[in-house]
Amino acid sequence: MEPYIHKVRYYECDRMGVTHHSNYVRMMEEARIDLLDRLGYGFERMEADGIVSPVIAIDVQYRKSTTFQDEVAISLKLLEMSALKFKFGYTMTVRGQVVCTAESTHCFLREGRPVSFAQCYPELAKKLQQD
Amino acid sequence: MEPYIHKVRYYECDRMGVTHHSNYVRMMEEARIDLLDRLGYGFERMEADGIVSPVIAIDVQYRKSTTFQDEVAISLKLLEMSALKFKFGYTMTVRGQVVCTAESTHCFLREGRPVSFAQCYPELAKKLQQD
Amino acid sequence: MEPYIHKVRYYECDRMGVTHHSNYVRMMEEARIDLLDRLGYGFERMEADGIVSPVIAIDVQYRKSTTFQDEVAISLKLLEMSALKFKFGYTMTVRGQVVCTAESTHCFLREGRPVSFAQCYPELAKKLQQD
Amino acid sequence: MEPYIHKVRYYECDRMGVTHHSNYVRMMEEARIDLLDRLGYGFERMEADGIVSPVIAIDVQYRKSTTFQDEVAISLKLLEMSALKFKFGYTMTVRGQVVCTAESTHCFLREGRPVSFAQCYPELAKKLQQD
Repeated sequence: MEPYIHKVRYYECDRMGVTHHSNYVRMMEEARIDLLDRLGYGFERMEADGIVSPVIAIDVQYRKSTTFQDEVAISLKLLEMSALKFKFGYTMTVRGQVVCTAESTHCFLREGRPVSFAQCYPELAKKLQQD
Repeated sequence: MEPYIHKVRYYECDRMGVTHHSNYVRMMEEARIDLLDRLGYGFERMEADGIVSPVIAIDVQYRKSTTFQDEVAISLKLLEMSALKFKFGYTMTVRGQVVCTAESTHCFLREGRPVSFAQCYPELAKKLQQD
Repeated sequence: MEPYIHKVRYYECDRMGVTHHSNYVRMMEEARIDLLDRLGYGFERMEADGIVSPVIAIDVQYRKSTTFQDEVAISLKLLEMSALKFKFGYTMTVRGQVVCTAESTHCFLREGRPVSFAQCYPELAKKLQQD
Repeated sequence: MEPYIHKVRYYECDRMGVTHHSNYVRMMEEARIDLLDRLGYGFERMEADGIVSPVIAIDVQYRKSTTFQDEVAISLKLLEMSALKFKFGYTMTVRGQVVCTAESTHCFLREGRPVSFAQCYPELAKKLQQD
């Protein structure tokens, strides 16, 4: 699947002239939402199903700085899936060079209670595992 | 009433080393929420009353740049109040120097329909006019 | 010229479920940078020329709320140009409906001192006036 | 040392009504800058010394959601220090309950090259280790 592209905006750069590190966490969310959208499980669908998917943990390694106008290509894949949690891995590159790698862990909640991803959306689980 | 203080954070400054202009709009909101809080009409109360108060318009004049660690003192007063709209004026200073002046116009909505500020909260209307 | 498209991101929406009003100010900047880029006067060129172009004032009318995933189309044109200032006008639409209109006023600074836009970049001034 | 307090702002909350997870990364930075400030090693001093201290990695566990107006108390301590890297640990609480724990790893750069923290600022290194 094609990586998601985030073009770094002026207001995302800090006094040192580089993309502020908090913004990579936002790019990860963008790429994740985009992936689910492309697989037919967009935010609206989950919202309609009463499902929310909070972030439980993130882990980010900043390898090279990026800056205004850089096009960050974000590749995303499912790393693990258990009954109640799933973890995505991210590789972000600019002009072919890895600038950042990261992981995020999530669960699914329906009415505030954890539900099984694989039971909620078996086809999505399958698609993500094949990816 | 004492001005609201916003200390400029590292991530609010841009590549030119100054507070990004969009952040003044956020400071205006902080000062407005703080004023209503201090007058006993906090966000929670309005939310409980089913009242939301969207921004209809803003108008900002940037006079001097500010930067990381600056303490921006924001004074706020009611400029106008009509049946359905009200307008606040803002003066922001750093070490006594005016750095920004602004206005914001708002309405009150209950269940998506405009309601009269003075009818909803007559005492708040009075307090704001005396201020 | 084609409008600039900003797709509203999850983290740009607030507790009321709509795009936070401060983010329109950021969208205006994105559209402005994009316009100058397309005309061949990108940020890097100005930076290399020692030119910065701070925002002096903004004026925004919020007409309809927008939300997550909305594609905001931003059209931009030069409204006024004097010796030392220039003003852009913005019209933002979603699915053909106007959601926001705005203006922004700017100057050009070289080494901290105002310089004439038309003298710095006469061809850009001409292009913007024809637009 | 007293924890750093961050009061959650309206614009930091998302459509689900909770503090957006990216903002915890910003709170970590605020608390870190505040700690160094209180120890006499503020950003300005480091900047004057030509030292920058980029974030190499972050690791965040989100334990409970927080929301608008919550006062997040952030305690920070040095976890590890080697020749070229140092790691801070963060515990964030609201009304005594842990809402988030995190770590961040940093280095020191002078003119783009790694320098030893302990050699640059031996007294700061000692203070942080005693803390």
